[in-house]
This record gives sequence, structure tokens and C-alpha cells, in this order.
Amino acid sequence: MQTFKLILEYDGTDFAGWQSQAAGRRTVQGVLEAAIARVCGARRIRLVGAGRTDAGVHAEGQVASVSLATRLLPEELARALNAVLPDDLAVVGLMAMPGAFHARRDAVSKLYRYRIWNGARRSALRARTAYAVPVPLDVAAMREAARALEGTHDFAGFQSTGSSATTTVRTLLRLDVCGAPGDEIAIEVEGTGFLRHMVRALVGTLLEVGSGKRPAESMSVLLAARDRGQAGPTAPARGLTLVRVDYGNPRDPDRLAVPPA
Amino acid sequence: MQTFKLILEYDGTDFAGWQSQAAGRRTVQGVLEAAIARVCGARRIRLVGAGRTDAGVHAEGQVASVSLATRLLPEELARALNAVLPDDLAVVGLMAMPGAFHARRDAVSKLYRYRIWNGARRSALRARTAYAVPVPLDVAAMREAARALEGTHDFAGFQSTGSSATTTVRTLLRLDVCGAPGDEIAIEVEGTGFLRHMVRALVGTLLEVGSGKRPAESMSVLLAARDRGQAGPTAPARGLTLVRVDYGNPRDPDRLAVPPA
Repeated sequence: MQTFKLILEYDGTDFAGWQSQAAGRRTVQGVLEAAIARVCGARRIRLVGAGRTDAGVHAEGQVASVSLATRLLPEELARALNAVLPDDLAVVGLMAMPGAFHARRDAVSKLYRYRIWNGARRSALRARTAYAVPVPLDVAAMREAARALEGTHDFAGFQSTGSSATTTVRTLLRLDVCGAPGDEIAIEVEGTGFLRHMVRALVGTLLEVGSGKRPAESMSVLLAARDRGQAGPTAPARGLTLVRVDYGNPRDPDRLAVPPA
Repeated sequence: MQTFKLILEYDGTDFAGWQSQAAGRRTVQGVLEAAIARVCGARRIRLVGAGRTDAGVHAEGQVASVSLATRLLPEELARALNAVLPDDLAVVGLMAMPGAFHARRDAVSKLYRYRIWNGARRSALRARTAYAVPVPLDVAAMREAARALEGTHDFAGFQSTGSSATTTVRTLLRLDVCGAPGDEIAIEVEGTGFLRHMVRALVGTLLEVGSGKRPAESMSVLLAARDRGQAGPTAPARGLTLVRVDYGNPRDPDRLAVPPA
């Protein structure tokens, strides 16, 4: 058995998210496991994804780990998988790893990008990958609010109900608002871990700041309230892309190197 | 009756091209005419498109003209149309024009962009809008060949059979190859008029140059041959986008201002 690390790109529009489910829904995990089974002739495949992206969320650099009995070299395996995978799912990197590698447990940080189309008119070519907000946004105010959310905080107010996380303290290494009003705006969020729907709740809150419904300086009060009802709505999945998953030294239990907030 | 100019953006993937056809196929013209009929309560609508894009070809700035009896202001009409149009088709501009305005006859030039994904691996997020060529391309050679195709030439060797054009002489104002090997490469083609499938035949020929199958200096021989069989294949529709249609002074019969080749 050889453990492999796969780097995946997908257009999440036509997937019911990452995770395999009952009742034959099309998931990234399910489609990829079927492709691996076909290429390697294996029967039971246990694929682990670094992040369980929701339905409609895209990826440029999702990471998965899998152990396989195959004689194929990584390069050959990647080519064989890409030959059978559908157009909206591609293996963009594949390498052999030590057997202990685990895509989710060993991840040190993840980078997400949320794309907003801030033009006055709808954009048909961005419909699948950006959220359209036609009213000009106050990007400077969004940046100010973003600064206040960076660092280590209790993000209980930004998680969806039904989460089973034991602690709601998370660290945002970076929360940047790029772009200009009336044009494309990208919110980049890098963190060591995220609660359920946390990125989309952060974006929904920043959008309220950008549209003047909430002052930029209210973020500390919002964090202290720890109340999902007070933060902004969960922004639509279509705007979100998992850009990159970073791995430090996976054997170091104290591996998180968090810069000062 | 008021004549309107519409600027349209669409993801061509799920359209059977611009032009309305028999047998209920989904076309840009058909979907847009149905939306106008619904919004304006009109029955017979004659929409004219500047370029009859093929199935799978996209647009950022297709232009259409239409005459309507409506009391809606251009801004109101645009908003009403965008409210009923599907996600993959949007009105990005709409203005009232003199009655004589005709989107196709008055067009002075058009700009097309052809996107090539030259990475070694497939890109799932570019699958709908770029053509994947995994072998590194010689972009410098493509640029040299492109230079030789600019200007006024007989492009008979670059049109699909079944064309009814009376002359096959056309003028390319600009043919640029942007980008780098292994990355995204964009071929931009601006011209005063194009033969059937001409842009895609130009791209197919430049791709043969880029992959070393044809020398860059063979373009003049190819133009002189006037033989479709000697030029490269028609590149796939998915990579092509109609970026912009330009209108000069529509009343000037001698309106083409062609810079020296």
C-alpha cells in the first residue's frame, strides 16, 4: 500500500459538496473514489479530504489523501485519473507520501477566496463562481472590519447551528478585501481551522458592513456576543473557492506558527 | 417604436449558438426574444445580433439591436430583462438608438479572445471557457506567425466550407498572442469582418505553429494557397469569446479606418 496526496480542482456548481452521501447524489468524493476504483481495480477506497466543501463551493487546491495498492507511478496515476474524471473535476497534482500522511489532520492552514461581482448588471460569465452584489460596496469599511476579525478569537457567532466542534476558538492568519467598488471584489481568508460555514458567515457580515447596514467598528462587540443571530447571513456557496491547503511539519504537535495578531 | 442597442454577456456552453433554429433548440437569440416578449408584451420581435456566435462560443460584449413599442426607459428595460433571463445570459448594457441602427450592418470591427489553458494538467475551473493544450507551446513562434496574418489578405484558406461570402478578403487589425508557455495563453483577434469559423481556423493554425508542426514563416504561403485543407484545424468553440463590437460613424459608407499593416 502506498499513500498518495492528491491536489484537486473542481467547479462545485454541479456537485452536492465534497462528502459522499446516501441516495446517489453526485459528490466530489464519490466521483473521485469511483475513478480511483476504475483506474486501480480497487474495491474499497478510503479517501480523506482536507476540507469538506459544501454544495456549490469550488476548489483550486483541495487536498485529499488515499492509500492504494498500485504499481502506477504518481505521474501515471494522475494522467489515468484525469482521463476518466468529468470536465468539472481535475487532479492538478499527485505525489507519493509517507504512510502516516492524512490530508485533514496534517493540514496546518487553508486559504479560501470569496468572489463578489459588484457591477451594476449581472455577469453571465461569473454566474457560477461569484456572488453578484449590484449595489456599490464600501470596500474601505470592509477592510477596516476585516482587520478587527484577524487573529485568534472565539468565532461562536460565526458558525452554523448543528456544529459539533469542541471549541469555537479559531485563528485567522489573514482576512483581506481586494478589489474596488463596482468591479470584482475578492475576500481572501487564511486560517488554521474553520467552523461550519464560518467563511461564508464572515463574508455575509463584511457585506453588511460594505452596504452600510453595520458599522466597521462593531466587530469586537459581535465577537464578544458569540451569537449567530447577530452576525450577517451566510453568503451563497457559489462565490467560495478553497484555494490552497498548507502542510507544515506533520509530526510536530505544536506545528501552528501563528504570527502576532 | 424605439430602437435599442443591447450589450450581452453569455456563457455559451449550454446554448446551441446565437441564431434561432427550428426544433426548439436553446439559442441566445431565442431565449432573449422570449424574455423581451414577456417583458414588453410584444408578439413579433426581430432581434439582430452583431455576430452569429456558434454553439459553445461565449460573449462578454455581443451587441444586438431591436425595435420595440415600449414605455420603459432603457434602465428599466435592462433591469426587467435581467430579472427574467437565466443565469448564463445577461444584459450588461442597453441604450436607445436612432431608428436606423442595425447591430450587424453598422458594426465597424469586432474583438474576439481565444483562451488556451497550457498547463500540464487539466483545469476544471477553466473547462467551460478555455481549450486545454497540455504540451508547452512555443509562444514566440506563434507571435511571429500572428504578425504575418495581420492586415488585409484573402483568407479563403481559413473559412469553413458552406460559406456564402461574396469576397474572402478580410482585414485583421490586430492578432496578438498573450501569455506564457505552461500558463494561460490568450489569442486576441480584432478585425473588420470575419469569414465562417475564421477565428477558430486562425487559432488552430497558430496552435500547429506553437507545437512545432508548422514553421512560423509559412503563413504567407498558406494565405496564397487559399486552401482550407492546408491550414490548421478549427479550434474548439469553448475557448472563444466575442469580447467587443465597435461602431464608428454608421452613416459613413467608407467608415473602415484600417491602420497600415
